[in-house]
Amino acid sequence: MSRLRVRYAETDKMGVVYYANYFVWFEVGRADFLRTVGWTYREMEAEGHSLPVIEAHCQYLQGARYDDELEVRTRGRMISPVRIAFDYEITRVSDHTAVAVGRTVHATLNSKGRPCRLSGRVRAVFQ
Amino acid sequence: MSRLRVRYAETDKMGVVYYANYFVWFEVGRADFLRTVGWTYREMEAEGHSLPVIEAHCQYLQGARYDDELEVRTRGRMISPVRIAFDYEITRVSDHTAVAVGRTVHATLNSKGRPCRLSGRVRAVFQ
Amino acid sequence: MSRLRVRYAETDKMGVVYYANYFVWFEVGRADFLRTVGWTYREMEAEGHSLPVIEAHCQYLQGARYDDELEVRTRGRMISPVRIAFDYEITRVSDHTAVAVGRTVHATLNSKGRPCRLSGRVRAVFQ
Amino acid sequence: MSRLRVRYAETDKMGVVYYANYFVWFEVGRADFLRTVGWTYREMEAEGHSLPVIEAHCQYLQGARYDDELEVRTRGRMISPVRIAFDYEITRVSDHTAVAVGRTVHATLNSKGRPCRLSGRVRAVFQ
Repeated sequence: MSRLRVRYAETDKMGVVYYANYFVWFEVGRADFLRTVGWTYREMEAEGHSLPVIEAHCQYLQGARYDDELEVRTRGRMISPVRIAFDYEITRVSDHTAVAVGRTVHATLNSKGRPCRLSGRVRAVFQ
Repeated sequence: MSRLRVRYAETDKMGVVYYANYFVWFEVGRADFLRTVGWTYREMEAEGHSLPVIEAHCQYLQGARYDDELEVRTRGRMISPVRIAFDYEITRVSDHTAVAVGRTVHATLNSKGRPCRLSGRVRAVFQ
Repeated sequence: MSRLRVRYAETDKMGVVYYANYFVWFEVGRADFLRTVGWTYREMEAEGHSLPVIEAHCQYLQGARYDDELEVRTRGRMISPVRIAFDYEITRVSDHTAVAVGRTVHATLNSKGRPCRLSGRVRAVFQ
Repeated sequence: MSRLRVRYAETDKMGVVYYANYFVWFEVGRADFLRTVGWTYREMEAEGHSLPVIEAHCQYLQGARYDDELEVRTRGRMISPVRIAFDYEITRVSDHTAVAVGRTVHATLNSKGRPCRLSGRVRAVFQ
């Protein structure tokens, strides 16, 4: 689980968070998810792997506002030997309101940029 | 149709455009779409209407790169009396490669933030 | 003092943090500074005040990298009855390297957007 | 000279453009400046050079607003054999109001990340 506080930079003139920024929070969520399972995306890249996003989706339930404290809950799972999906749920801490839910799908690439199976250690994280 | 050039700010350390930024380009696409039909989102807001995003989706086909010139093709249509959907297609100008396709769904709200039917003039744009 | 972790979104294709994003961290720093002294920028706005930036400066000492944990140290002071300056120092936590130093100058405006003296309570924070 | 239109993404809840985004427009300005003189930053990087920002400054004169059309005027000059400075002036097209002025200073690095003199061809551009 990740905690973050809405930055002024993330708001727009409608007074709420600009819609693209939720995807940045999803990124924070999945980085922390990987960290929790004893692994970091930085390491993964250093080892030559990458997880480029091939699909992203967000459903906006309630506009997050400046200075709101939010929680991002993330779950990851393999959806094929070379695909990982992450599901996200963003909640406002003060009143437990669901702010947004979303999903990203990622290819698992090796250092040559080709689809590859993740190692057993990594796959184990997602099961 | 919108034309834009990828900014350095929009890239990430993978060397391609960060995935959330495609949603910013979708915004550029729909603003220009509205402009083309003789209307601007700025005016719409001045008249008290807004089109908050309630759903957003993007499929990434090919990573756009720094300084690429891109075209965003946008179509809009009413999917209910109080919902508009926009479909986007982003293409790299140099080789006509499809870079991404996406979709956003918007509520049509009045000045009190309540769902409202758009005026006939506006609805006509989407048919 | 604020702590934050570099997001992938904040990097660029050079592999380090894009230079404009340091100003976002400065914003995080000054918001936390105000919070520390028993006050929030959100409240300030709710009371009709605002602190628009009229000048911003940053000196880049060492490129921050993805996943780096950083500390932002912020100090604020009145530089005239209607001007506040904040000074920032960003340090990488792992090795205490100074990453950047900067400064922003802000006008103090009332609800009509005119320069105004801040209340004694607020001015006291800055001395 | 560059032309750009303010994106919704670039505004904040104050209703004007978030201050860090002016630095993104400076980047657009200097990329176009280089392009005008028959050269692109993309090429420069491909040849192994880079121009990391070591200092950035902006003075905000008037808040740019959503959908404003802006012009960025950029001038570059060598300030030492291994330093380039760019000066920027951003103007609103509709009323010729100066919106912001700024400056960035860049190191000139070779492919090993060490300060290097730019080629005569490049230096000529800045004189």
